[in-house]
Amino acid sequence: MPRIADQQKDFPQWYLDVIEQAELAEHADVRGCIVFKPYGYALWENMQRDLDCRIKEQGAQNAYFPLFIPESIMKKEADHVEGFAPECAVVTHGGGKELTEKLYVRPTSETIIYATFAKWIHSHRDLPLKINQWANIVRWEMRTRPFLRTLEFLWQEGHTAHATKEEADTMAQAALQMYADFDREFLAVPVLTGKKPEHEKFAGALYTLSTEALARDGKAIQAGTSHNLGQGFSQAYGVRFLDEGGKEQQPWMTSWGVSTRLIGTLIVVHGDAKGLRLPPTIAPKQVVIVPIYKEDAEREQVLAACRKLAGTLAPLRVHLDDRPERSPGYKFNEWEVKGVPLRIEMGPKDLVAKQVVLVRRDTGAKESLPLAQCTPNELSGRLDAVQQGLYAQAQAFLEEHTHEVDSFKEFTSIIDGEGGFVWAPWDGTLESAQAIQEKTKASIRLLGDNAAKGTKDLVSGAPALHRALFAKAY
Amino acid sequence: MPRIADQQKDFPQWYLDVIEQAELAEHADVRGCIVFKPYGYALWENMQRDLDCRIKEQGAQNAYFPLFIPESIMKKEADHVEGFAPECAVVTHGGGKELTEKLYVRPTSETIIYATFAKWIHSHRDLPLKINQWANIVRWEMRTRPFLRTLEFLWQEGHTAHATKEEADTMAQAALQMYADFDREFLAVPVLTGKKPEHEKFAGALYTLSTEALARDGKAIQAGTSHNLGQGFSQAYGVRFLDEGGKEQQPWMTSWGVSTRLIGTLIVVHGDAKGLRLPPTIAPKQVVIVPIYKEDAEREQVLAACRKLAGTLAPLRVHLDDRPERSPGYKFNEWEVKGVPLRIEMGPKDLVAKQVVLVRRDTGAKESLPLAQCTPNELSGRLDAVQQGLYAQAQAFLEEHTHEVDSFKEFTSIIDGEGGFVWAPWDGTLESAQAIQEKTKASIRLLGDNAAKGTKDLVSGAPALHRALFAKAY
Repeated sequence: MPRIADQQKDFPQWYLDVIEQAELAEHADVRGCIVFKPYGYALWENMQRDLDCRIKEQGAQNAYFPLFIPESIMKKEADHVEGFAPECAVVTHGGGKELTEKLYVRPTSETIIYATFAKWIHSHRDLPLKINQWANIVRWEMRTRPFLRTLEFLWQEGHTAHATKEEADTMAQAALQMYADFDREFLAVPVLTGKKPEHEKFAGALYTLSTEALARDGKAIQAGTSHNLGQGFSQAYGVRFLDEGGKEQQPWMTSWGVSTRLIGTLIVVHGDAKGLRLPPTIAPKQVVIVPIYKEDAEREQVLAACRKLAGTLAPLRVHLDDRPERSPGYKFNEWEVKGVPLRIEMGPKDLVAKQVVLVRRDTGAKESLPLAQCTPNELSGRLDAVQQGLYAQAQAFLEEHTHEVDSFKEFTSIIDGEGGFVWAPWDGTLESAQAIQEKTKASIRLLGDNAAKGTKDLVSGAPALHRALFAKAY
Repeated sequence: MPRIADQQKDFPQWYLDVIEQAELAEHADVRGCIVFKPYGYALWENMQRDLDCRIKEQGAQNAYFPLFIPESIMKKEADHVEGFAPECAVVTHGGGKELTEKLYVRPTSETIIYATFAKWIHSHRDLPLKINQWANIVRWEMRTRPFLRTLEFLWQEGHTAHATKEEADTMAQAALQMYADFDREFLAVPVLTGKKPEHEKFAGALYTLSTEALARDGKAIQAGTSHNLGQGFSQAYGVRFLDEGGKEQQPWMTSWGVSTRLIGTLIVVHGDAKGLRLPPTIAPKQVVIVPIYKEDAEREQVLAACRKLAGTLAPLRVHLDDRPERSPGYKFNEWEVKGVPLRIEMGPKDLVAKQVVLVRRDTGAKESLPLAQCTPNELSGRLDAVQQGLYAQAQAFLEEHTHEVDSFKEFTSIIDGEGGFVWAPWDGTLESAQAIQEKTKASIRLLGDNAAKGTKDLVSGAPALHRALFAKAY
């Protein structure tokens, strides 16, 4: 197998190598698009399965809306169309004829969904209305990178309508918390959560909340967003309801989503020199069994013992790699690149000793385990340990790479050095945020509390309004 | 609630009324597209869950390929592009600029997938390759009808590559059988299966197999298709492998798919005067409990008993309809329209008698059941009976409406009368098939055995080659 680039020296190439060698995806024959290969798509399917339950626990129901959005509908919310129309793919011909109205390929579905909500919502009894959609999305990105930024991607988008601003605030916050829980519990990815600054909010939103993870190269990665959309879309699409007093009101909307970018997040947060490291919750294969034999005479006996063991581990996702044409070393390498949490090795000596060798992918720790103890229960415990181990490592990394500074010098020494998150005072102006971004490539990821009295913006020197979380970002 | 049109008198309007009143879907603000409402989308989700397991049992793995197909890739297989390009939506602009190459929105994915297979397949060891994709599809249909024919629809498409024609034949047949089993076991929909005549095959295929169901208005409905694509796509996309002897060969492809059209199939096969009738396997709600009380004093007691009962039925998909603002009659009607297989009614008298009233949606049969017997086990048995009842009814209908004729007069008396399937001799020419279609609107759904000696084509009078299955069709 070809080598993977050094993660420390060339993180971007390491990232591409892992995707290729773990067989997650490849470039497609369409610019900026990828083919999700089976192993990569399985990660998305597993995320969907878990997240879909969490979404339904929020009281949302799944539905499906059209891929195409007519220009007239797209254009009704001015801020939104200004933000999204320039990055849309546009259908101008259908059935061999030029269309009388252009169709935008959805870059997100607020417009078409809220146009529909106008037909569904009449009374306060129809609220809250909570809808979720799993769908493909197209945004005409110029610089693309597999999973992290692609022309087409897969996502879920929740869309809700509420009677009051408070209820919409609560929903936006609940969705954010749901994502943070999912990131931590399912992906073993620690995240910081909070509000985006005004200039980074979703086009047409009142405000945007975000979960931010930290890649091992010190860059931030936005993992999910949740928006309180206010009443702008209600206004634009004529969504109205009669409140309990019989008065006509405009509902408050929220929308929230995560995408296949989470696969990229998983790679950059957990991956190591040997490739992917998958949390057991999401691993398509949780345990791989590799039979070890040198002579053909040993082969059948070892394989039989491996098959028997695999059969007893059924509730776990176990894979016996019995390919005769591959050496154990090749297999070790392949399953390490693919991030399988546990490896079991079994050879003639192990048969005699009635044991197996068990190797953890997160730490590389190796131990001998009596065969009698090699039960689903025991291995579930080890898988839990891997899950917690990955989270603990990522959490320690995030903590080590989160700093608080007061001067631009300290700021640049971190941002230009190891990277990571930096809390710094900000005067609340777009100009200062842009100045920092131009000088350092770091942007504001989240807003923190109000700034302490006397603290000053790093570039303008003006009194700070906020503590803001800065980082270079994907 | 508004009335549903008479199924006997105006089947098309009945169909639209059921979709509206069961809240399955509605017209979207884009021509020819629908919004899948939560109850309708849940049917698709349940189908996906079951069918996905069956697909994986075939050895196929899920993956995901781009929505857009560049014109240069689309055009490589001549028959295919001739069949599909005229009904494509075409993206000509992206990111605010005119594209140098047009992008087709996928009308099916053979082209982009086999272009990728060329990179994945090198040796006989890479075969068979079996990939499945769940995706949205766009075909520029002029006359649309919710679920049955829409501009955008959802489907799965299996794509496989094999070393020999025989293996591809076996795969195409296995996919057909999988669909037939799924139709019968999961949807309770009996189907006839077989080969399409040459003029009805998939563009670019060697041959097409199909499952055909029969709607209650006597029209056939194609429920799923499976194609042996031969080596045409291998040729067009340069897919090659070295066989065991080291010789370069072209693999044989198959593709097979079912779509959200199956929701329409479910409606037209099982629906009755009162609306939808859902097989319990697919019903989002299998049992609905309707509390009955006239006076407020009875309310709490009845509701408490209903809640307690609902709690004990957990493994089933049970819904307690406790809306205070709706009458029992309104609720009965609503859940009947929505096709819920079992209804439990519980009122003050039932509390005293320690019983419930149980009503089957498929037959309308009503019985009193002692509360002690109202267990998940007992109700599972009743649900099985509903499942079998729906299948038996549909099967009997199909048998009653399948005829064999030798003369055009008999043929038209059936096709213009009750409708249904008609086996008739056919001389194998496109001209005769078209003549029959022009005269009667009936088309050939499937080919049967070779015609018996001496039988003659209904229109040309020439010696028949095949028994062919004719019907008017959706």
